[in-house]
Amino acid sequence: MIHRVLSHLQASRSRHLEELTAYLTSPSIAADPAYREGTIMAAEQTAQWLREAGMNSVQLYPTPGSPVVLAEWRKAPNRPTLLIYGHYDVQPVDPIDLWHSPPFEPAIVDDRIIARGSADDKGQLFMHIKAIEAWLATTGELPINILFLVEGEEESGSPHLGQWLQEHKSMLTANWAMVSDTSMWAEGVPSITYGLRGIAEWEIEVIGPNRDLHSGLFGGTVANPLEAIAQLLAGCKDDQGRITIPGFYDEVLPLTEKERAILDQVPFNENNYRQTLEVKALRGEQGYTPLERIGSRPTLEINGLWGGYQGAGFKTVLPSRAHAKLSARLVPNQDPQKIRELVKNYLLAQTIPGIQTHVTFGPGGGKPFLIAPDHPAIVAACQGLSESFAHEVVLIREGASIPIVAEFREVLNLDTLLIGFALPDSRVHSPNENLHLPTFYQGIEALARIYTTLSTL
Amino acid sequence: MIHRVLSHLQASRSRHLEELTAYLTSPSIAADPAYREGTIMAAEQTAQWLREAGMNSVQLYPTPGSPVVLAEWRKAPNRPTLLIYGHYDVQPVDPIDLWHSPPFEPAIVDDRIIARGSADDKGQLFMHIKAIEAWLATTGELPINILFLVEGEEESGSPHLGQWLQEHKSMLTANWAMVSDTSMWAEGVPSITYGLRGIAEWEIEVIGPNRDLHSGLFGGTVANPLEAIAQLLAGCKDDQGRITIPGFYDEVLPLTEKERAILDQVPFNENNYRQTLEVKALRGEQGYTPLERIGSRPTLEINGLWGGYQGAGFKTVLPSRAHAKLSARLVPNQDPQKIRELVKNYLLAQTIPGIQTHVTFGPGGGKPFLIAPDHPAIVAACQGLSESFAHEVVLIREGASIPIVAEFREVLNLDTLLIGFALPDSRVHSPNENLHLPTFYQGIEALARIYTTLSTL
Repeated sequence: MIHRVLSHLQASRSRHLEELTAYLTSPSIAADPAYREGTIMAAEQTAQWLREAGMNSVQLYPTPGSPVVLAEWRKAPNRPTLLIYGHYDVQPVDPIDLWHSPPFEPAIVDDRIIARGSADDKGQLFMHIKAIEAWLATTGELPINILFLVEGEEESGSPHLGQWLQEHKSMLTANWAMVSDTSMWAEGVPSITYGLRGIAEWEIEVIGPNRDLHSGLFGGTVANPLEAIAQLLAGCKDDQGRITIPGFYDEVLPLTEKERAILDQVPFNENNYRQTLEVKALRGEQGYTPLERIGSRPTLEINGLWGGYQGAGFKTVLPSRAHAKLSARLVPNQDPQKIRELVKNYLLAQTIPGIQTHVTFGPGGGKPFLIAPDHPAIVAACQGLSESFAHEVVLIREGASIPIVAEFREVLNLDTLLIGFALPDSRVHSPNENLHLPTFYQGIEALARIYTTLSTL
Repeated sequence: MIHRVLSHLQASRSRHLEELTAYLTSPSIAADPAYREGTIMAAEQTAQWLREAGMNSVQLYPTPGSPVVLAEWRKAPNRPTLLIYGHYDVQPVDPIDLWHSPPFEPAIVDDRIIARGSADDKGQLFMHIKAIEAWLATTGELPINILFLVEGEEESGSPHLGQWLQEHKSMLTANWAMVSDTSMWAEGVPSITYGLRGIAEWEIEVIGPNRDLHSGLFGGTVANPLEAIAQLLAGCKDDQGRITIPGFYDEVLPLTEKERAILDQVPFNENNYRQTLEVKALRGEQGYTPLERIGSRPTLEINGLWGGYQGAGFKTVLPSRAHAKLSARLVPNQDPQKIRELVKNYLLAQTIPGIQTHVTFGPGGGKPFLIAPDHPAIVAACQGLSESFAHEVVLIREGASIPIVAEFREVLNLDTLLIGFALPDSRVHSPNENLHLPTFYQGIEALARIYTTLSTL
C-alpha cells in the first residue's frame, strides 16, 4: 500500500507547491495585534486543508488569543494514535528591508520557496497534511489513528494552549505526539531532535530623569538610563561567557559522558559554521563545545535594546528611559517560572542612584524537554526516515524551544517525537526564511512511511 | 536716549510676541536633510527681521550646509564693534509624542511660549534684533557698531562655520563677540556664563553574524552584538563615575580654589534640582559638586543605543548589529580632535571574538571655552544686566557647548560674552521647549542697555 501512496505523492508535487504557496500568503504574525486578520486567515486556511485531506471533525476552538484548530481520524480501533502538533502563526518580519522579496508573497529561488512561515512552521505542518491526504486518497484509510492539533501562538510562547489542553484533555487521548518544527542536521541527513531548550522572557524598562535632557546642561549630574542599562546587562555575564546571576545554573542537569559521546558523533564543522555566519570566531560559555552549548547549556540573550536618539545626525540628549527585551533558553531541569523570578530579582537588586528599574515577564515560559534517544517510537521513526532519505538518522539536542512539548508530557502524558525538515540555512526567524523543496517532497514521503512504522508498535 | 528706547520696547511687546510666533513656525532641523526647506525658510526669515530692524548689508552666504546670514551697522566710527552671534537651526523634536502642542505651532501657556527653537536659539537671537530695532527706530542710530552673524548648523556642531570665518575674516573685525544661547541661573537672576564645555561625538556600529539569528538555534555559539555593545559601553566608566579610557583626563585643567569659591557662591539647591527631574539621587564623577561637574568636568554620555527587536511582543532574535551614538562634553584644555581619536582607538581595542566594531565621528568637534570672570566687557555687561533685572549678576560655568565661541578667539581673536535668557525649565533640547515671556521682554531691555555700557570701553 505504501507504494501507491508514494506514487500518488510523486505525481502531486506541483499541486503541493501551488497549495503551499497559497498557504504562505497569510500574514499570521499573532504576536502583533495589527496582524489579527492575517492570523485568523491562516487558522481558517489550516482547517480547510485538513478538511480537503479527509480529516474528520475539523473545528476552530476560540481561545483568549488565536484559535486552536483540531481535526481527527480515529477509524483504526486496534492501532495506536498519533497526535500531530503544528502552528500556523509566524515570527515578525523585521528587519523588513533585508528581505529580497515580500515575506508574504512566496518566491521560488533555485530549489527553495522563500516566505515567512515556509519552514517555521506552516510548511512543515503542511507536509503532514499532504502525507495524510495521500493515504486517504489512495487507500481510503490511514495506518494509524491521527489527531491534528494546530495552534496560533507558538511564537509568543503558547500562552493559552496549556489551559486549552487541560480543558480538552478527554478529546486528546493518544500514544505519542509528533512535531515537525525543527531542522535536519544538513541537507540529505534526516534528523530527530531528542532534546529542546525551554524559554523565559523579560522586558526591562530603566527610568532616569522625568524627561529627555540636554546632555550639556545636565550631563554629569544625573545617571544616564542608557549607561545604566548597559551596565545592568553587561553585569549578567562574566568574561568566560557564564551567566553570573546567582542560582541560574543550580538546576541544570549536567551532561553525562554517554551523551557527550552521542553529541560528538554529530558531524559538526566549526569552520563551515563560522563561514556561514561570517564571524571570525565562535563565542559562548567556556568548557563546552558549540554543540553542547546549543543543546545542553542555558543562555541569556538580549533580543532588543533601545533608547535615546536613533535618527540621522546627532542629538546630544541625555534620555529619560531605556528599554531591553531579554530571553533565556533553559535546559533540564531548570524551571522557567523559577528562572523568571530569579532574573527579575537580580535585575531589581542592581540599584543605581537616581535610576528606577521595572521588569515584566514575556508571555512565554516553556519548559525544556528531553526524551531517551533509544525510545521505541524514536527507533520506529528512524526506520521510516532513513528509508526515505537513504541516510542514517542523526540524533540531536536542539537549542530552540517548543514550550508545548513539555505540556504534552505533563497534561496528556505523551512523549513527543521531533522530526523536522528545515535546513540549517532555512533562515528561521530571519529575513528570507525558506524551505528546501526537494526536502519538502522527500519529507512528505518519509512521514507517510513513519505512520506505518509507528502503527506496529 | 535709553529711556526713549525702553519706552518704545515696552509699547511694542504684543507686536514682538506676534513676530516671534511667526519666526518659530519654520521647522529648521538642519541636522535632518528632510527639513532642508524649513531650514532655508528660517534663514530667510532671519534676514528679513534684520532688514526690518534697520541693519545694513543683510546677506545670505551659502555654505556646504546651511547658509550664513550676515548683517552690519558700522556708522559709529569712534565706538567699539560688537559681533552678535546666533543660530536659526533647532534640535530634532523626538520624542514627538511627549509634546503637548506641535513643536512648530507655537502655543502660549501661562507666561511662556512653547515651541522648538523658542529658547534655543531663535527666541534669544530675536531679542537682540528687537533691541537693535528699538534703538534705530527711536534714535536713528546705535550706541555701538554691530555685526550680526547667524548660522544654521549650530546643533550639528557648526561643521562649516570655521572655514567660513577664515574666508570672511576681513569683514568680521570687532572688539568682542556676544552670544545669547545660554540660560539664566533662575527666573529673575541675570547670569553671565564665563565657561562652556566643548564637544566630540561618535557613532558606533557593532557587527556580529551576517544576519539576525534564531536565539534558540544559535544562542550559545556566537557573540551577541547587543551584549557586546553593552559591555563596551559599560566598560567606559568605573563605579566612581570616572571615565576609564586611558588619557581622557590628561589635559583637563584642574579647578583652582578661587574658582571653586566662585562656583560655591552660586545658589544651588540639590533637593529642588532632584525634585524638578524627579530622580531620587544625583549621580556623577565622585569628588566634585554637581555644579563643578557640569561646568568644569568632562563627561561621556550615550545619546542613543539600539539594536534587535523593539516592537510589540517578543521576538527571540540574536541580532546581527547594534548601534550607539555617544558624545563627550570637554573642558579646558582638552582638544576635541585628540579626544575623538583617543576614544575611537580605545573602543576599537576592546576586541570580542566574532565581533567587529566600527567607529565614526560626528560632525561636531567644538573646543571648550573659558574667559576671565573679571574681564572688563563682563564687568560692563553686568552693569546693564543688573539694572534691567534689579538683581546682582551670577557668574557661572555652563555645561553646554557652543563650538563656535572657541573659533571666535582663534580665527577672529575675539573674546565672547555669553549672556543668556533661557530658564532652567525652558526644556532646551527636550519636548515642550519654551521661553519665559517676562524674561523675553526684560531681556530685550537689558540688551538695549548693554550696548550702551559696552560703548564706553
